[in-house]
Amino acid sequence: MTAEDNSISNNGRVVALCGGVGGAKLAFGLARILGDRLTVVVNTGDDFEHLGLHVSPDLDTVLYTLSGLANRELGWGRGDESWNFMSVLRDLGAETWFQLGDRDLALHVERTRQLRAGVPLTQIIGAFANSFGIRAEILPMSDDAVRTTVVTPEGALPFQRYFVERRCAPMVRQINFEGAGKAQPTAQVLAALRDPDLQAIILCPSNPFLSIDPILAVPGLRGVLEAARAPVVAVSPIIGGKAVKGPTDKIMAELGVAATNGAIAEHYRGLLAGLVIDATDAAERDTVGGPTHVTKTLMKSDEDREELARETLGFAARLAAMAGPKRMVSS
Amino acid sequence: MTAEDNSISNNGRVVALCGGVGGAKLAFGLARILGDRLTVVVNTGDDFEHLGLHVSPDLDTVLYTLSGLANRELGWGRGDESWNFMSVLRDLGAETWFQLGDRDLALHVERTRQLRAGVPLTQIIGAFANSFGIRAEILPMSDDAVRTTVVTPEGALPFQRYFVERRCAPMVRQINFEGAGKAQPTAQVLAALRDPDLQAIILCPSNPFLSIDPILAVPGLRGVLEAARAPVVAVSPIIGGKAVKGPTDKIMAELGVAATNGAIAEHYRGLLAGLVIDATDAAERDTVGGPTHVTKTLMKSDEDREELARETLGFAARLAAMAGPKRMVSS
Repeated sequence: MTAEDNSISNNGRVVALCGGVGGAKLAFGLARILGDRLTVVVNTGDDFEHLGLHVSPDLDTVLYTLSGLANRELGWGRGDESWNFMSVLRDLGAETWFQLGDRDLALHVERTRQLRAGVPLTQIIGAFANSFGIRAEILPMSDDAVRTTVVTPEGALPFQRYFVERRCAPMVRQINFEGAGKAQPTAQVLAALRDPDLQAIILCPSNPFLSIDPILAVPGLRGVLEAARAPVVAVSPIIGGKAVKGPTDKIMAELGVAATNGAIAEHYRGLLAGLVIDATDAAERDTVGGPTHVTKTLMKSDEDREELARETLGFAARLAAMAGPKRMVSS
Repeated sequence: MTAEDNSISNNGRVVALCGGVGGAKLAFGLARILGDRLTVVVNTGDDFEHLGLHVSPDLDTVLYTLSGLANRELGWGRGDESWNFMSVLRDLGAETWFQLGDRDLALHVERTRQLRAGVPLTQIIGAFANSFGIRAEILPMSDDAVRTTVVTPEGALPFQRYFVERRCAPMVRQINFEGAGKAQPTAQVLAALRDPDLQAIILCPSNPFLSIDPILAVPGLRGVLEAARAPVVAVSPIIGGKAVKGPTDKIMAELGVAATNGAIAEHYRGLLAGLVIDATDAAERDTVGGPTHVTKTLMKSDEDREELARETLGFAARLAAMAGPKRMVSS
């Protein structure tokens, strides 16, 4: 640990916004350093009802990643998984395009039962995180339903149909967050973002369009981020013009945006105090229109995750210590 | 095969009424002989909602038994089962008193989904049976909810709470079939029982009070059995004053009825043309008040099941060939 990030790692709260895989990896690194001083606000726009069960893909990926249970090869689900439920479901001729592991299923069944009994999702996830031994606070972005819909030439597709069943093949014309207008931010998310000891807000390297935007679409949240005294720092999901995983670059192209770090900064305009980019893209440093930290953003090992978290926290601490405007301007 | 049961095994339909374990074993034997000429009408009074899933214990036991998938040691569930779902459910602190195997779970989830979509239980079970390669027709006693409730000194307990969670410990004062008054027999059950080629109606050696009575409580069914020209033959669940499995003898004692074959015949008074009893109880032959066939009723192997089925069908064929009254009188 270097001296410059001591200020963050020893006191104060950090809030990270994230979606699934890539974002969860950084959240893991942050949790290693911050423990219970980390709050992770997670996208629920991918949530859907499947086989009568409420599935929360990003929340579960964060739970599995932070508890060390995640399947590192697949990028979703648990490592210690069995598939006997699916195999019988197939025998029955039921829908099998969405894989549900036997252990994973317990979360869906118990979450669905509690939701039907009126327990808020925030409380359910808090109890799950606790039973998984996770010290960080894991919060759904809202207890109200926000459903990401991808508008394609074939029509509007619910997110999981687009993402899993169609494997992101259809061209994206527009992305909608159904229900976002009526969703309420939870008291827990607002409390974390308004914590007087808040040191940094991290936008994890998740897909900005599909994972971070739904969170920012919850009424009031963008305003709270804009008003926060703590610096908002994004880690770019783009390395060398490509997304590490997932369809970020494909979607950017389809939406007519170049898959560059500058475009990521532009996308978050008005929010960011700084952007973390990969060393591969060091040459783009001066094109992003504001403070940029260059480091290794590809996370292959737990140590990579922790190192990127430490670099990001150190960058945020330096930005917080800087005088002057706290938001990047458009390049 | 002996000559006397050829008449049954080569043509005509047979309807068996049954509950779970013991009854399903005889249904297995009958299905081996009769194939698609067997209809099994199954108790759904034990059905309940658990963790938000519609569980049909007796229907599933019949499906697993007839498809050869049943767990022969446990007497419920599948033989090739894993328990990873339950293990995570336990970690989450959820309800675990009712065991749901990973493979078994597929039936509950898919059944629940289809029921919520408005598909009748009869149609769902028919498709399940088909996908399990079962040739016999498996029918729920009704598509409407009938819920067995056991009145005990502690109050009224839903059946599974009494049977599984409390392991039949509380004393039974009364057994109610909630909703039975409003339940409709299905067209499929009525068609099977009114089949002009109906050769026999078999009351399997299930618990008369908990497994067969709920079926007879569905309005109209008892009348159809009474009116049937085919003989109604019961296989007694009592051997040597004890139930082979389950609480039949305990419940009979608590209800003030001796655990004898005579009491079983008396319980079914007005319905039976004959009773099959175990060789152990040959001395009771003349006490049951009507035609009685003595054979080995304990079913340990598949061959035992088929042999008892064959004996029962042969007995029914002889009763059908007899002139005179088709119903036993009270002893």
